[in-house]
Amino acid sequence: MPTNHPAAELRIAVLGVGQMGGYHVDTLSARTKGARVTVVSDYSHERATEVASAVGARVVDDPLEAVRADDVDAVVIASPGAFHEAQVLACLEAGKPVLCEKPLTIEAGTAYDVVLTEAKLDRPLVQVGFMRRFDAEYLALRETIATGELGNALVLHCAHRNPAVPDHFDSTMMLTDSVVHEVDSARFLLDEEIVAVRVLAGLATSAAPSGTSDPMIVVFETESGRLVTDEIFVRTTHAYEVRTELVAERGTAMIGLGHALQTSSGGRWGGQVTPDFVARFGQAYADELQAWVDGARRGEVGGPGAWDGYAAAAVTEAAVEALRTGGRVEVDLQPRP
Amino acid sequence: MPTNHPAAELRIAVLGVGQMGGYHVDTLSARTKGARVTVVSDYSHERATEVASAVGARVVDDPLEAVRADDVDAVVIASPGAFHEAQVLACLEAGKPVLCEKPLTIEAGTAYDVVLTEAKLDRPLVQVGFMRRFDAEYLALRETIATGELGNALVLHCAHRNPAVPDHFDSTMMLTDSVVHEVDSARFLLDEEIVAVRVLAGLATSAAPSGTSDPMIVVFETESGRLVTDEIFVRTTHAYEVRTELVAERGTAMIGLGHALQTSSGGRWGGQVTPDFVARFGQAYADELQAWVDGARRGEVGGPGAWDGYAAAAVTEAAVEALRTGGRVEVDLQPRP
Amino acid sequence: MPTNHPAAELRIAVLGVGQMGGYHVDTLSARTKGARVTVVSDYSHERATEVASAVGARVVDDPLEAVRADDVDAVVIASPGAFHEAQVLACLEAGKPVLCEKPLTIEAGTAYDVVLTEAKLDRPLVQVGFMRRFDAEYLALRETIATGELGNALVLHCAHRNPAVPDHFDSTMMLTDSVVHEVDSARFLLDEEIVAVRVLAGLATSAAPSGTSDPMIVVFETESGRLVTDEIFVRTTHAYEVRTELVAERGTAMIGLGHALQTSSGGRWGGQVTPDFVARFGQAYADELQAWVDGARRGEVGGPGAWDGYAAAAVTEAAVEALRTGGRVEVDLQPRP
Amino acid sequence: MPTNHPAAELRIAVLGVGQMGGYHVDTLSARTKGARVTVVSDYSHERATEVASAVGARVVDDPLEAVRADDVDAVVIASPGAFHEAQVLACLEAGKPVLCEKPLTIEAGTAYDVVLTEAKLDRPLVQVGFMRRFDAEYLALRETIATGELGNALVLHCAHRNPAVPDHFDSTMMLTDSVVHEVDSARFLLDEEIVAVRVLAGLATSAAPSGTSDPMIVVFETESGRLVTDEIFVRTTHAYEVRTELVAERGTAMIGLGHALQTSSGGRWGGQVTPDFVARFGQAYADELQAWVDGARRGEVGGPGAWDGYAAAAVTEAAVEALRTGGRVEVDLQPRP
Repeated sequence: MPTNHPAAELRIAVLGVGQMGGYHVDTLSARTKGARVTVVSDYSHERATEVASAVGARVVDDPLEAVRADDVDAVVIASPGAFHEAQVLACLEAGKPVLCEKPLTIEAGTAYDVVLTEAKLDRPLVQVGFMRRFDAEYLALRETIATGELGNALVLHCAHRNPAVPDHFDSTMMLTDSVVHEVDSARFLLDEEIVAVRVLAGLATSAAPSGTSDPMIVVFETESGRLVTDEIFVRTTHAYEVRTELVAERGTAMIGLGHALQTSSGGRWGGQVTPDFVARFGQAYADELQAWVDGARRGEVGGPGAWDGYAAAAVTEAAVEALRTGGRVEVDLQPRP
Repeated sequence: MPTNHPAAELRIAVLGVGQMGGYHVDTLSARTKGARVTVVSDYSHERATEVASAVGARVVDDPLEAVRADDVDAVVIASPGAFHEAQVLACLEAGKPVLCEKPLTIEAGTAYDVVLTEAKLDRPLVQVGFMRRFDAEYLALRETIATGELGNALVLHCAHRNPAVPDHFDSTMMLTDSVVHEVDSARFLLDEEIVAVRVLAGLATSAAPSGTSDPMIVVFETESGRLVTDEIFVRTTHAYEVRTELVAERGTAMIGLGHALQTSSGGRWGGQVTPDFVARFGQAYADELQAWVDGARRGEVGGPGAWDGYAAAAVTEAAVEALRTGGRVEVDLQPRP
Repeated sequence: MPTNHPAAELRIAVLGVGQMGGYHVDTLSARTKGARVTVVSDYSHERATEVASAVGARVVDDPLEAVRADDVDAVVIASPGAFHEAQVLACLEAGKPVLCEKPLTIEAGTAYDVVLTEAKLDRPLVQVGFMRRFDAEYLALRETIATGELGNALVLHCAHRNPAVPDHFDSTMMLTDSVVHEVDSARFLLDEEIVAVRVLAGLATSAAPSGTSDPMIVVFETESGRLVTDEIFVRTTHAYEVRTELVAERGTAMIGLGHALQTSSGGRWGGQVTPDFVARFGQAYADELQAWVDGARRGEVGGPGAWDGYAAAAVTEAAVEALRTGGRVEVDLQPRP
Repeated sequence: MPTNHPAAELRIAVLGVGQMGGYHVDTLSARTKGARVTVVSDYSHERATEVASAVGARVVDDPLEAVRADDVDAVVIASPGAFHEAQVLACLEAGKPVLCEKPLTIEAGTAYDVVLTEAKLDRPLVQVGFMRRFDAEYLALRETIATGELGNALVLHCAHRNPAVPDHFDSTMMLTDSVVHEVDSARFLLDEEIVAVRVLAGLATSAAPSGTSDPMIVVFETESGRLVTDEIFVRTTHAYEVRTELVAERGTAMIGLGHALQTSSGGRWGGQVTPDFVARFGQAYADELQAWVDGARRGEVGGPGAWDGYAAAAVTEAAVEALRTGGRVEVDLQPRP
């Protein structure tokens, strides 16, 4: 457990305080030991002011100026993906630890540039917001695979279901913004890279706008030939559900079935469906921030780094191509520096 | 409920009394009301004699003679698949109801011949041994889909896992002898035909002989564009497991998770894994035989008919081709007479 | 597996064809191999005629005449409890196997008379309708206790819940007609006698008539000092639920949580609550009848005998006294002949 | 969410840093926002020094001096129960908020004195360590009862199982140290007082020292006549398990069955049994401390207060008497000031 010297409290700038960034500000302020939000920046000055005043922080309109500010030790990036590249590179230049929400950048090429730039520094500074790596169930599943108690891992079956998304959330975004989580989960659980992708689009739900394939089945192949299936369905109308089943040589393991309160009445038994990502992963988000803060104070990266952000981008780029062609697309992964 | 006049007891010949046929003889004799095994036929005269004597039946060596015998009202075929065509056609010629274990015949073409021959009779006589149609969970899932309470069905996820198979059970047999059950289940649950197949072969378990792809992921497309995924894994070393999850527009439904006795001790909670098909589907087999006997006594077919046997053969034939080519193969389905 | 010689079909008289007796006639006729209902007797001649004609049986108005009839090999008693004593004794006198629904008789004293009368015969003839002994989950739990794999059994927790009963079903009947099942289950699972009883009556559901304590907590003590708790609640409005948890020295085991089809929609996951005893125990009833028929044809009793019926009556009689006094009442058990 | 002004950080003295107190120091230092441990006191100066140095606190040997220290804003009491009375009263005299581990004091009489003393102050200062009130499952169950969605609550069934305790942990301590949690849970869930108790001691596990009744069944009656059963079993050898089932007029609800990772291998499916209280209630402990800190900074009590501590002591005192007499003992509850 880290020692707690009040003097070492980390002063943080949060860039972008929409739903995700605002949630991070709350968690940093109310639940993250050793951290304090000192600067808030947002494209909307009004929104930034509202969020900052609630936690005693100040507003800096220019995000790159916020990165460089004297009362900022570290940076959380929750702005739109298109701004990530410039903001992350500014953090690297300023030598400040940064927790960047996924995607690291919006193309595999620029993500790899971040990897190369960071590799020239004397220590890594970038952590990417793959918060499932802090979820107790994923950690338990990874441990089960790592110990080899069930034999070699052969197949992973994933399901990723959201209750609803806006109409502009099309098939491509389903791959780049949603499936990207299974890309990282598969890499994290299996501890190897993904080398090829197929995307199968079948009958779409009537809730999907015309032209959007929701749900889809994505199939990944890993370096060692393992198959990973992923059902991505973002308009279930009722549930946020994330489930993963491992099929190994001598057994299987499943996470995501856990249910707390069970009631029985009116002819039915059961429980409440997890309504959103906070109910399912709220603790993982808090643990992610705490791990990042603890890491930053020790001069380390406490979670998935720039390479993980790049690798995910390379796979989702291939997935978008697989959706377009209907065939199998190989992932073009640059060498790791 | 059928009335029970002892005089109407159905006299049955069982052709082939290996593991499956012997099990049918036992079930017919000990648990199937209104039925009596009068004739047993097997390529091993010794085995036939052993089985027949235990239930007071006589042995007829020639299976086609057994079909035509005067003390035989109906026939159960549990011989190797290569003999099915001739035996089923003999039953049709003799005008006797027949319950034929899957496959109906070993090629889609000859299976379609059976369909055409039967279509010329004044009533159907062929029932195929897809016993999952008699399993309470499958019936409940089909009902859930049929009522539309969860909205239109979009995707089915199937898993079919066996503890062990002999070494000669290769990738092709995994499709024709095992996946054939999901072919029928999907057709039964979704009430439409399958039109295309993909077979994805990844990392094989070390328990599989060289050249055998175990497990595999099979993906079906149906007439309306629904996707059906099937994990087929026949050397799990420990469990017989059959699970199906429906993903529909407004909800999901799963069968195959049911567990009876749960214990907690030695640091673990849980229960016994279903060890074999009898533990999981024994009641479905008994109900299948009872439904067939009841149907035969009423002059009807009490379960899946010749068309269902043919459709399954057409799909598994396409699956074998998909395994060979690695691509998507369309199912070539003849018109239904 | 018993051999099946058609000539040995057991000809059965069913006395009392209300809900339970009518259900037995159906099961004997449609699902019980080796049995045939030849005689039906009921206090209502009209009802008897209706039931008999559906299965090709004849009506005999006088139940004792039915017992003695030449075309009756064995008897099922499903008449009201007050008639059981005379009917069972008639079966013993006629030397015919009898399956008697619980209670064996309505007082412990007369039940013991049946035990003594049967003990003078050269073989037992009485089976009592404790059908849970044929339920797969109870059998698995008994096996778990018997093997000692969890260490010595210490406590059993039972819950017995019915959706609804008629208003005349008062606190006393809850003990004699419902709790009697847990009395037998506890004796069957623990393989020892019950020696004392407490009945605790708390806040009653508003669905209970005034003066009826529904639910109640019953606590049994066994010969070796084990405690058995039983929640009896017969007006749950929605569910038929029977659950038992064993607490042993090194582990616990539970039955009655099993659920088949699970759905997730409308913000809830879960399944259908078992609506009635047929859904939960239908197979156990069929297996009970089959075991009794098989036993009778072999000259044996295939299930719980007269002593089990008497022991249950002795315990429920003590429970009624415990309800009256509010204290602990010892069970007065006669010696087993 | 509370605003977070660093200046307002609460400076805390922890009295008693054995297993529980040491755990609280860690949680306050590593996971509780807005709190800082400044003073540590323990009867072992060496232990106090070890714990204090790890978190930058100082040691004060005399606990009452620690309470009064200038660099202490609030106090956590985790010393043996016999010292609680003097330490809590010192906190009241100093006007400092105190979180006191259960029991509040070791007799109902002295606990009531604390209630009366606090009632004379202008605001409550005492919070008692009933941390289940911060557990998400208990909160969900309480909400289910409070909304009345299942109808009026009738019965609660509790099970409280520990893997192991020291030999001096006798039947009386099982009531005062373990059952006390169900006493508070029942009061919290049902929102009314307990008025009578029965304790039933049956066959003891062979792991229990001679004369210790482990397990026991405790039955509470509440003001409105509801029954609460509690199985207390503290030498299960393998599991920490806390389960509660509500039986209400139109339905039931259960907590404590939740399981995360499920594996299937070696012929068994299941998961890991919760090994200890940290695995089950670690988050509740952290949330309890956070709520207490947030409350103290706002001048409020953030959890169960002195009355709750007293009421629990009154009930467990009656339970000890019920264990001695074998009968029903009424709880003698003083008026609430």
